[in-house]
Amino acid sequence: MRKIFLSLLYALATFSLQAQTNPLTASQGKTTLNFSLSSQGEPKYTVKFAGRDVIRPSALGFVLKDKTSFDKNFVLLSSEIKNVDETWQQPWGEVSQVRNHYQELTIHLKQNTTPAGLLDIIFRVFDDGVGFRYHFPKQEGLNYFIVSDELTQFNLTGDHKAWWIPGDYDTNEYSYTNSPLSKVDAFPVRDAATDIAVREVADRYSVQTPLMLKSADGLYLNIHEAALVNFPAMQLHVDRTTFGLSSSLVPDAVGNKAYLHAPFSTPWRTIMVSNKAADILSSKMILNLNEPSVIKNTDWIKPMKFVGVWWEMQIGKSTWSYAKSADDVDASGKLIPSGKHGANTENVKHFIDFAAKNGIQGVLVEGWNVGWEDWFGNWKENVFDFITPYPDFDVKALQDYAKAKGVNIIMHNETSGSATNYERQLDTAYGFMNKFGYTSVKTGYVGRIIPRGEHHDGQWMVNHYERVAQKAAEHKVMVDMHEPMRPTGLQRTYPNWLASEAGRGNEYNAFSTGNNPEHETIMPFTRLIGGPMDYTPGIFKIKGYSDVPGRQVHTTLVKQLALYVTMYSPLQMAADLPENYEQHMNAFQFIKDVPVDWDDTRILEAEPGDFVTIARKGKGTNDWFIGAVTDENARVSTINLDFLDKGKKYEAIIYADGSNASWNNNPEVYSIKKMTVTSKSKINLVLAAGGGAAVSIKQL
Amino acid sequence: MRKIFLSLLYALATFSLQAQTNPLTASQGKTTLNFSLSSQGEPKYTVKFAGRDVIRPSALGFVLKDKTSFDKNFVLLSSEIKNVDETWQQPWGEVSQVRNHYQELTIHLKQNTTPAGLLDIIFRVFDDGVGFRYHFPKQEGLNYFIVSDELTQFNLTGDHKAWWIPGDYDTNEYSYTNSPLSKVDAFPVRDAATDIAVREVADRYSVQTPLMLKSADGLYLNIHEAALVNFPAMQLHVDRTTFGLSSSLVPDAVGNKAYLHAPFSTPWRTIMVSNKAADILSSKMILNLNEPSVIKNTDWIKPMKFVGVWWEMQIGKSTWSYAKSADDVDASGKLIPSGKHGANTENVKHFIDFAAKNGIQGVLVEGWNVGWEDWFGNWKENVFDFITPYPDFDVKALQDYAKAKGVNIIMHNETSGSATNYERQLDTAYGFMNKFGYTSVKTGYVGRIIPRGEHHDGQWMVNHYERVAQKAAEHKVMVDMHEPMRPTGLQRTYPNWLASEAGRGNEYNAFSTGNNPEHETIMPFTRLIGGPMDYTPGIFKIKGYSDVPGRQVHTTLVKQLALYVTMYSPLQMAADLPENYEQHMNAFQFIKDVPVDWDDTRILEAEPGDFVTIARKGKGTNDWFIGAVTDENARVSTINLDFLDKGKKYEAIIYADGSNASWNNNPEVYSIKKMTVTSKSKINLVLAAGGGAAVSIKQL
Repeated sequence: MRKIFLSLLYALATFSLQAQTNPLTASQGKTTLNFSLSSQGEPKYTVKFAGRDVIRPSALGFVLKDKTSFDKNFVLLSSEIKNVDETWQQPWGEVSQVRNHYQELTIHLKQNTTPAGLLDIIFRVFDDGVGFRYHFPKQEGLNYFIVSDELTQFNLTGDHKAWWIPGDYDTNEYSYTNSPLSKVDAFPVRDAATDIAVREVADRYSVQTPLMLKSADGLYLNIHEAALVNFPAMQLHVDRTTFGLSSSLVPDAVGNKAYLHAPFSTPWRTIMVSNKAADILSSKMILNLNEPSVIKNTDWIKPMKFVGVWWEMQIGKSTWSYAKSADDVDASGKLIPSGKHGANTENVKHFIDFAAKNGIQGVLVEGWNVGWEDWFGNWKENVFDFITPYPDFDVKALQDYAKAKGVNIIMHNETSGSATNYERQLDTAYGFMNKFGYTSVKTGYVGRIIPRGEHHDGQWMVNHYERVAQKAAEHKVMVDMHEPMRPTGLQRTYPNWLASEAGRGNEYNAFSTGNNPEHETIMPFTRLIGGPMDYTPGIFKIKGYSDVPGRQVHTTLVKQLALYVTMYSPLQMAADLPENYEQHMNAFQFIKDVPVDWDDTRILEAEPGDFVTIARKGKGTNDWFIGAVTDENARVSTINLDFLDKGKKYEAIIYADGSNASWNNNPEVYSIKKMTVTSKSKINLVLAAGGGAAVSIKQL
Repeated sequence: MRKIFLSLLYALATFSLQAQTNPLTASQGKTTLNFSLSSQGEPKYTVKFAGRDVIRPSALGFVLKDKTSFDKNFVLLSSEIKNVDETWQQPWGEVSQVRNHYQELTIHLKQNTTPAGLLDIIFRVFDDGVGFRYHFPKQEGLNYFIVSDELTQFNLTGDHKAWWIPGDYDTNEYSYTNSPLSKVDAFPVRDAATDIAVREVADRYSVQTPLMLKSADGLYLNIHEAALVNFPAMQLHVDRTTFGLSSSLVPDAVGNKAYLHAPFSTPWRTIMVSNKAADILSSKMILNLNEPSVIKNTDWIKPMKFVGVWWEMQIGKSTWSYAKSADDVDASGKLIPSGKHGANTENVKHFIDFAAKNGIQGVLVEGWNVGWEDWFGNWKENVFDFITPYPDFDVKALQDYAKAKGVNIIMHNETSGSATNYERQLDTAYGFMNKFGYTSVKTGYVGRIIPRGEHHDGQWMVNHYERVAQKAAEHKVMVDMHEPMRPTGLQRTYPNWLASEAGRGNEYNAFSTGNNPEHETIMPFTRLIGGPMDYTPGIFKIKGYSDVPGRQVHTTLVKQLALYVTMYSPLQMAADLPENYEQHMNAFQFIKDVPVDWDDTRILEAEPGDFVTIARKGKGTNDWFIGAVTDENARVSTINLDFLDKGKKYEAIIYADGSNASWNNNPEVYSIKKMTVTSKSKINLVLAAGGGAAVSIKQL
């Protein structure tokens, strides 16, 4: 009876609403979104920016597992327009206040078939782009359902330049390729990337998001997604002749894409657009499209810098493991220490001392727990237990020592990709952290995923990472995830999920051919669009740390300083060894000074693959910090300091590449210059090839 | 250096051992096992019983994922013979003392290829058959490895009669088909079994074990496995023309069979053989091939009988769910009670009262926790939380009430097949049980498995069930698993894992066309070979409990009594409603009297598919209980009571089918007769078509 009444209500609503004129366009600033239905009832959309076509007519919809089509035979039930202009506060971030200003167009569709599927599409049009999501309303004939394919298209207007990495189900750690869309070919890139542990690229012409694009007529586009919750990551299949992109979802172990339950709202598909590259970097669209924090009291969440027993393992000075191999045991079956174990009590104390002396809040310690002799590459389920230290690592004594010095040891939970093993032990692992006073954890997923057949970027793992964030929040634990899916702004909803790696970090310079000099000028436009990255900057010993001929960091020392500003993260590692910092304490001063939380951010200039210069104002201070990075080309950048308070005086300290420096010659040479500046000042920053500049500006 | 030394040692060992004569035959009683290597170095074995061929030359070995062959190019390194005759004590069981008497032949093989794989095969030859397992020694070139196929064959001597069910990856709940091996065809059986929720039969000619066979010349064979740990269940592929059976392992989500780490010992492959069917039922080979209990103190493990809020849901009198559907909510979003919820406090008290009055130790309550409106069929991951009761179920009050009456409420944890969800909550679920004083749990896995792509009988789930048993033991919780893999004697190693369903239980009579009259004469030869079954006998209202025309239990009432003896389990449910028992309290007396733990067991007569008569002696008493069941044919059975103590007098109470009874006519008619008996007595038991007889014999 009740259901009949509801059906009647729907019919009435349809009738009355269709008699009205439904809005089909939304706009905000220069951005315009248009929605239409084809003669076959196929939903389509277009996007224009300043009157220029950005997205040509592009399909919307889904195919469900039971062959139900959700891409045609639709009629418009109704639509609504809403205008929003609000400002909200971040607990931490690049800016403290975020303006959320958009026009929203909601489209209600119904199929003229049996069953008559209902589908809503919600568009939000911002000054700097468009976000849209699908909503499956609660409806007859659709309760639990399985998504076979998402059909969303992003049909571009030409053969844009693209900065892309392969659409890999398991990794985002490729170097970026810059090519026209017509030249995208993921397989050779995948095949060459032997430095990445797990690679799975099923589609030769698919790429990851955030995908950065530039049109021949100077429009910058960025396609990504926001609020990736309970859904697989979206990759983009590239049609190399029509320049159409289409959504390609990461499959699960049996080839399905998503298991859903109506009502359900998908993640937002996002298209940023501007004629200025800097606008892409300053966009808050991704954050705005995420849900507010689910954590009410965020006082315990504290951004921080940290050092760690880590780079020394990456460069082979010490090891994660305690013994040479799992077979290296004595007569009683105990591991025989190799003498190279990094996470030993003495060494960790040394790092704690260095951190305490220099006002660094955290010390990461990897390799502290048993299992590292035999952790990787075997698709082994029960790898680590997250609570049992090696014999030479004294948990209690070190926690006491660190606490006495005001330093936090950062827990490390490497899962080796065995998420089932980690989930079974989350309560135990975080209970252990609470017991011993650890406040944050770095997780890792290096290896093929267990449940076997699942992928790092599939729905099951997307849900896993969220469960980890939730469980950590219950325990008041902050999280830094390595090897999760690339971020989509979830740090707004889970502010304890401070950062992720999920991209090609500085570490590749330690164990592979490394990151080319343009890498850090691309990352802000790609990986960092979704959220903070634990890139682990701060390597001062640029050459000579490795026995491998030619191996080096592909930047200057000063560019490493600049990264603390250009690569935003509330967690920033000072990744090099204390003894390397001690050689350059005047340069290390910048790392000591630079904040990890900001009231304001200005993108001063930016061009993907070429250069990025950013100024940020420290949280609760009147101090500014500037980072400038360039690619393999030297560069002079003139910075107008008009963002400083008028009439006030500041002391600027400029950390500059040495005049004869470049990333491959004399990369460690630098100069430090102090000067007094005001809002009327302009300063010239001279960046070496593969170099950078870092400036601290403190009010006098 | 160390490794070189070991290699030398091997070489020396090989040399010296090959100079000796290696034993290649083992025998015990009438059973003889012979091992040989073919000219291609393929390991083969044969089995004879009383000089008759049982297993013709049959292959042994594996194919590994990396294409490494472990089935040929072997040479014999050495072999050893060992004789064992020992007796051990069970904490509970069909007998209190188990004799383990066998001759063991261990074969050490090495390949004459590079890499030179090492493989051991261990045969144990018993009076009643042969068990063998493979052992992968620790060796160069084999560390972690993946099994693609096991190649074990069981080549039979003819077109034996077989009692079989399809080789399904997810269920053992089929009715048995009796046919010659040449007529095995799993697909039509699978297709017809629409009463089974999840079916996955990949091989038309595969069958489950335990596979019961009878040769034309009167040999009884049973092929199964023992100690299934960290490996997938073995199914048997039937060659319908050669009568060869070959091992077929249940695959994982990506098609692999097992992820192993050397050294590793596989489960035992078992071949029981006798010229008497009764010997198959009395065999202790499966138990003997399992490892001793890992639980040191088993005092807290207590076999018991129980009633439960369960059959009333099966027959539609009440429901597991609280509301009609998940959508049936009031304005505030709360479920609207349907009024049919079975697990309400009042009703449960009624069951507690009945149990207390009749000396029944347990009350199972299903449907107590939220989630039943929406639990099944959607491959939904987060189904139940195992701690949140429906509003009308008062956990604390009921536990207090039960405790005051000396009754245990049995926890129910249905997972809907979502093992990942259950694993995340095991600590929480068992902590809840400990807090409220629950001592045992019935688990369930009705639905497709999550991790998706995994199967009930694959390695991952085999490990899951073991984790559940381990975790339960840590919490001193007894377990009764429904829908796990079929048992392989692990109750010896985990005596808190008291019983499993893992077969077609009495419940099928409630919701489907049910179990045919011969079903319970086959089950002891098949499903119960591996371990106790929670069959849920004791239905007294044979007809008229269902609205579906013709639906009934396909036994007489007395046969239901006999099942408490013929279907061994340390957990036995009195499954019918208290009001149905109250109509027949004189017959219910047998259920009150019959033990669930035994000092001794005698298989008095048995023929698969025809009849089974068993006598058992109650643990720590001098009382005996006899159960006799027949198929669709009436039967007179003369029982010689010579197992009673000589010179002592006993009172026998004989529960017999009514003279005009049969399973489909007057099934509830019975007679009860008392007489005095001695060890010299013989009693005639008259069994109706589809009927049975039950006898209690107490020393006077």
